[in-house]
Amino acid sequence: MSKLNTNYLNLKENYLFAKISEEKKKYIENNPQKKIIDLSIGDVTLPLTDTIISGINKGLDILSKKETFKGYPPSSGHTFLKEEIIKKDYANIKLSTDEIFISDSSKSDICHILDIFDTGISVAMENPVYPVYLDSNIIRNNNISFIKDKETFLKSNPKVDIIYICSPNNPTGDIWKKELLKKYVDYAIKNDIIIFFDSAYESFITSSDTVHSIYEIDGAKKVAVEFRSFSKSAGYTPLRLAYTIVPFEITLISSLGRKINLNTIFAHLKDIKYNGPSFLSEYGIYELYKMNNLDETKKNIKYYLENVKILSDYFVSTGQKSDSSINSPYIWIKCKDNMDSWDYFYYLLNNYGIIGSPGVGFGICGEKYFRLTGFSSRENTIEAIERLKGSI
Amino acid sequence: MSKLNTNYLNLKENYLFAKISEEKKKYIENNPQKKIIDLSIGDVTLPLTDTIISGINKGLDILSKKETFKGYPPSSGHTFLKEEIIKKDYANIKLSTDEIFISDSSKSDICHILDIFDTGISVAMENPVYPVYLDSNIIRNNNISFIKDKETFLKSNPKVDIIYICSPNNPTGDIWKKELLKKYVDYAIKNDIIIFFDSAYESFITSSDTVHSIYEIDGAKKVAVEFRSFSKSAGYTPLRLAYTIVPFEITLISSLGRKINLNTIFAHLKDIKYNGPSFLSEYGIYELYKMNNLDETKKNIKYYLENVKILSDYFVSTGQKSDSSINSPYIWIKCKDNMDSWDYFYYLLNNYGIIGSPGVGFGICGEKYFRLTGFSSRENTIEAIERLKGSI
Repeated sequence: MSKLNTNYLNLKENYLFAKISEEKKKYIENNPQKKIIDLSIGDVTLPLTDTIISGINKGLDILSKKETFKGYPPSSGHTFLKEEIIKKDYANIKLSTDEIFISDSSKSDICHILDIFDTGISVAMENPVYPVYLDSNIIRNNNISFIKDKETFLKSNPKVDIIYICSPNNPTGDIWKKELLKKYVDYAIKNDIIIFFDSAYESFITSSDTVHSIYEIDGAKKVAVEFRSFSKSAGYTPLRLAYTIVPFEITLISSLGRKINLNTIFAHLKDIKYNGPSFLSEYGIYELYKMNNLDETKKNIKYYLENVKILSDYFVSTGQKSDSSINSPYIWIKCKDNMDSWDYFYYLLNNYGIIGSPGVGFGICGEKYFRLTGFSSRENTIEAIERLKGSI
Repeated sequence: MSKLNTNYLNLKENYLFAKISEEKKKYIENNPQKKIIDLSIGDVTLPLTDTIISGINKGLDILSKKETFKGYPPSSGHTFLKEEIIKKDYANIKLSTDEIFISDSSKSDICHILDIFDTGISVAMENPVYPVYLDSNIIRNNNISFIKDKETFLKSNPKVDIIYICSPNNPTGDIWKKELLKKYVDYAIKNDIIIFFDSAYESFITSSDTVHSIYEIDGAKKVAVEFRSFSKSAGYTPLRLAYTIVPFEITLISSLGRKINLNTIFAHLKDIKYNGPSFLSEYGIYELYKMNNLDETKKNIKYYLENVKILSDYFVSTGQKSDSSINSPYIWIKCKDNMDSWDYFYYLLNNYGIIGSPGVGFGICGEKYFRLTGFSSRENTIEAIERLKGSI
């Protein structure tokens, strides 16, 4: 008799974004004449940039000829791209190509790296935060505690195995300040904790009092795994490319006290379970980095941040937000009139044709809050605000 | 203190193909002037076909324009491709697009689907077989039994939760005959067992007494999950595309006796842990299928099968093989002079500059056997045989 991992029964019935997408579909079916403005899922909308397209074409040319064709990539991706990542993304940090694992997705890596740990370990994560952290830990029956106030959390002297840090935070857009990160790194070193540092939105940072990489913090290479993605930084969501940094210095302890190197075991996990990222996806980024044309993708980031400013300004004016979002494609607002966040979802949808993400989907502390994104077009962003103002 | 999943310590130190690749590298460093002929890893060598290239270019065009750009794919891939898969790969089988999960890799799917089951379940698999089945079960501390003789295995009335069937088998190239599969399906239905049917090499089948899909067997949709890949069928290893069929009919049992639908829970797993395959990889196959140009890729399969015949004929003549391989890109031979398979590896490498895969890497029953592949070029395949014959 095939037996279910019963931890699955502890999951909420629907993945947040799947539920939003379902509600959107229903609304469109019932209101085919209305134009919806989708400010919910965090997905890019601008096309691939010229250098990326040129890189993919070069890659395709390589795969089109017998003399140059390459088959399976290494399970951690090709070295040619790793070398460019080190040069461009980690110019001031010492990294080896063997510490970089290129994959199709940060989401997958963040989930699958848990396989290396015992089930039933203890983890701490912000709340609200990207819901995948919670779900992937529920499936493994891990003990989950929430960092409700990141300034005071460490004072409770938490005994955990892993701490998730998402900076800039999805959904709130908050950054972790440098001094605070230093406290967490020191605490992790002292207490043998591993930090999962998710910097999927690193390219949106405009503040100077935070870090782009956790490795800017002294000692972080002893305890921190860093997850980065090209989805948002290079507008790459349809092409699936990300990478994870697992420094050589991090060790785990087996139940018999044996010290095990995390990098070695992650490399072994990759060999067993993964066959590497797409060569064409790699080649697009390789070209962008090698030609030093990152201004192209930065221009797109700027466009999305300008959308965020338009949204921010409006919700600061209504009192639903206290200050501007400047480090993330997201704005995080209080629901109008103290509504619950799913009520506000239907309120915005039914009255204004606007779709957003209910804050409670990111954790219980997100109840009565709401996430909107700057990933829509300029015209749609402006139109959403005009609709809300009642001017159209 | 971060705790290791100690099941990892039960893995062999190296993933088979990683070890072979390391030995190859070492040999090249020590013998830079010698030409190696690699007949080990199962990887295609012919370039992408014209229709696939044209499809990828069309896909790239879609991603290059704001009006047509698409972001994240659905976590199970785009419906446009699923519809073509149903039409072309399952013409005589009733399937819904919601039963198809497109992903980057069968390897990943075969590993990750185990997350849905309890740890410590019982599984049965052929021996020798693709080593990923074994490793992914070791990591989950599952009880593993081996099907050493597939004709007699069921007579022992095995009590297991999952049976792995690889047909055509990697590494032996053997197919499972239709009547035998029917017995396994019937046994699985009667005993609530799930069958994982891995048909990664389906496109190489030339015999008529087997099936291309397990669903050709009556009742299989109640118990069988089928894994298929474009890696070999379309020469797609650098582009990462595969799919898994999870029929609606399959149920699991929770520890409290509640029946759970496997398709529903697999879809949920995908939403949580995966963000879908590359749009460009999908579009290449979409074009190939939509234009009905599968003769292009079949021509490449034929080329590899002709290489297999060249290898087969030689090893039948030496007595290391009893008959030709006609359903797989692999040939499975006895090692010369009763050598152990790693000894034979070094024997072929050091004496002939030929790399192959030691049979023991596929399971203990593979000891004293060896796998060679037809994926090399015609010239190299012929040269390998000439070297072995001593004629060059």
